[in-house]
Amino acid sequence: MSWKDNSLHLPSLRSAPSLPRAGVKQKGLSVGVVIPLEDKSPETGIAGLVALVTPDMERVNAMILSRTGSDVTMIPEVANHLISSGGKRLRPMLTLATAALCGYKGEGHIKLAAAVEFMHTATLLHDDVVDQSDMRRGKLAARMLWGNEASVLVGDFLLGQAFKMMVEVGSLSCLDILSTAAAIIAEGEVMQLTAAKDTATTEDAYLAVIRSKTAALFAAASEVGPLLAGRSREYAEACRSYGTNLGVAFQLIDDALDYGGTAAKLGKNVGDDFREGKITLPVVLSFRRGSETERDFWRRTLEKGEIAEGDLAHALATMRKHRALDDTVERARHYGAMARDALEIFPASPWKQALLDVVDFCISRAH
Amino acid sequence: MSWKDNSLHLPSLRSAPSLPRAGVKQKGLSVGVVIPLEDKSPETGIAGLVALVTPDMERVNAMILSRTGSDVTMIPEVANHLISSGGKRLRPMLTLATAALCGYKGEGHIKLAAAVEFMHTATLLHDDVVDQSDMRRGKLAARMLWGNEASVLVGDFLLGQAFKMMVEVGSLSCLDILSTAAAIIAEGEVMQLTAAKDTATTEDAYLAVIRSKTAALFAAASEVGPLLAGRSREYAEACRSYGTNLGVAFQLIDDALDYGGTAAKLGKNVGDDFREGKITLPVVLSFRRGSETERDFWRRTLEKGEIAEGDLAHALATMRKHRALDDTVERARHYGAMARDALEIFPASPWKQALLDVVDFCISRAH
Repeated sequence: MSWKDNSLHLPSLRSAPSLPRAGVKQKGLSVGVVIPLEDKSPETGIAGLVALVTPDMERVNAMILSRTGSDVTMIPEVANHLISSGGKRLRPMLTLATAALCGYKGEGHIKLAAAVEFMHTATLLHDDVVDQSDMRRGKLAARMLWGNEASVLVGDFLLGQAFKMMVEVGSLSCLDILSTAAAIIAEGEVMQLTAAKDTATTEDAYLAVIRSKTAALFAAASEVGPLLAGRSREYAEACRSYGTNLGVAFQLIDDALDYGGTAAKLGKNVGDDFREGKITLPVVLSFRRGSETERDFWRRTLEKGEIAEGDLAHALATMRKHRALDDTVERARHYGAMARDALEIFPASPWKQALLDVVDFCISRAH
Repeated sequence: MSWKDNSLHLPSLRSAPSLPRAGVKQKGLSVGVVIPLEDKSPETGIAGLVALVTPDMERVNAMILSRTGSDVTMIPEVANHLISSGGKRLRPMLTLATAALCGYKGEGHIKLAAAVEFMHTATLLHDDVVDQSDMRRGKLAARMLWGNEASVLVGDFLLGQAFKMMVEVGSLSCLDILSTAAAIIAEGEVMQLTAAKDTATTEDAYLAVIRSKTAALFAAASEVGPLLAGRSREYAEACRSYGTNLGVAFQLIDDALDYGGTAAKLGKNVGDDFREGKITLPVVLSFRRGSETERDFWRRTLEKGEIAEGDLAHALATMRKHRALDDTVERARHYGAMARDALEIFPASPWKQALLDVVDFCISRAH
């Protein structure tokens, strides 16, 4: 669920035409099919959105700062350790942008955007405890500095503050969307816990997990914009669909990046999911497309956690052989295309263009 | 924050007149002052309320059951392990009773009562992780059966479901009260974490913690009743004050019970707080009233956690010497009296009587 900082140094942004899925059926091929891609500057991807939201985002940042305040000094310490650690604040940007896209002229989007970021931060704090992670966004995880206790409780505090801000905005439909998302996110995390280390997980089951744990907040963050603006169901659904599909694409790219993306080289931060035994789409595809010997390899390393020297390199080679990373990116492109099409009912505007470019940005991270 | 099951077998219910606080200044006295108490059947205390709320409570229980449902089977398993483990559901009863006291005729109190119980259950699940507790309500804690991960995430799920139910009721003022309580509870827990193991904690500082971590939910549970019923601020404040003071009294009695109450004998479940190094009011009073040698004892056992054979018995003897348990109960009586007076603006009714009796019930648990 993390936005991996190391993934943000992008060589180029490309979008792919449809291609014969040669690698899927030709098991045993050890070379990946090179996908022809357009060249496009990566910065265009998110710079447009960042420029447009900057005035509002400064107010969101001020709101975030004021709402982490507490006489209990550990609360702002723990909260700000994570909040100020260089997350890109993509989720609150979606709330600001979809509100603007829909012509919203009020003030509620600032608090809702801050609430969305708090929900996300609370999830990260709790995730680190659940995954026993040592690092987050290139820094020590809060739990390593203040303990699991503080991470659990400060997460709860931020969730409470998020709901307070939503209540202050006073839109019951937005409250409905965001509180439902909170329950669904937790449900997705439990689902992942249950499915954890099961190499036989199907692609569908995996998609159900990431729809809940990642895409639900992208969807809610995007849907409250049109709801605030009082737009009809049609436009709210369009923004929701945009958010859902962007969220799925985002998570799939994150999964590919954990193995170094399509330009996979062994390097720092590559293989965290592998070492933690996480079953993500690259593994799901490699397992299904692999030989029985290869399946035994995945069972030994991911289910049993018996990882020896050279196993990560072997995992990467096996993924390459089965085009697992290329096809994970390919799948992400599919959801990215759905996200873009969802917005097509809106007339052309700088906001619409910025939201469309974000899709390309998310996918381009993998190269 | 737990309602300790072993504390519910009550020998008798008594309420005490004011007494000279002999024990406070006469340090070195090794006998406690026996407080004369009225005799009253303990069951009267809560039986009246239980009888009145039973029809509504059955609907709350059905709501709770339906809202813990999920296709992710671990969620109902973990949630129901705790929910069906014999908690007395005092907090949702407060919501039902204050709504009825204020003449509410609608349906919203059912969902709000269920939401209050979910908030409480989520807190217990997270508390067990924070305190690394093995047991809860005489059963293995959920975290011992399903792991810390599940306890954190199912707690988050229940919080999300609680907010969903509140949103469905649609009262922004109730949402405001309950979401504020959620943030305050977490703040109180962090405060406790910060103050943990500090024997120099003052009574005021300790009260600030329990006002947040325990009384805030009692207050919110009691305030939403009059708000639902559309009663004026005066009545909402009265119910809130009732809840706050009942909550403080309840927690103080819980603290005394952890050392066996005023009839302190070494027995099962006595001394959990001592072994965990928790600073509660009996310790605060004993530390302040004690000699330097005694203070060294508290520092060694509670701050450093160096507990030897016989230390719990010595702690109990020291508490008895300084009347620390009697005076903790005495303090609880003070808050109980405030809770009762808060309700006095309401005309006589069976609901009012039942709520008044609950105060006596809570305090009588200590004998």
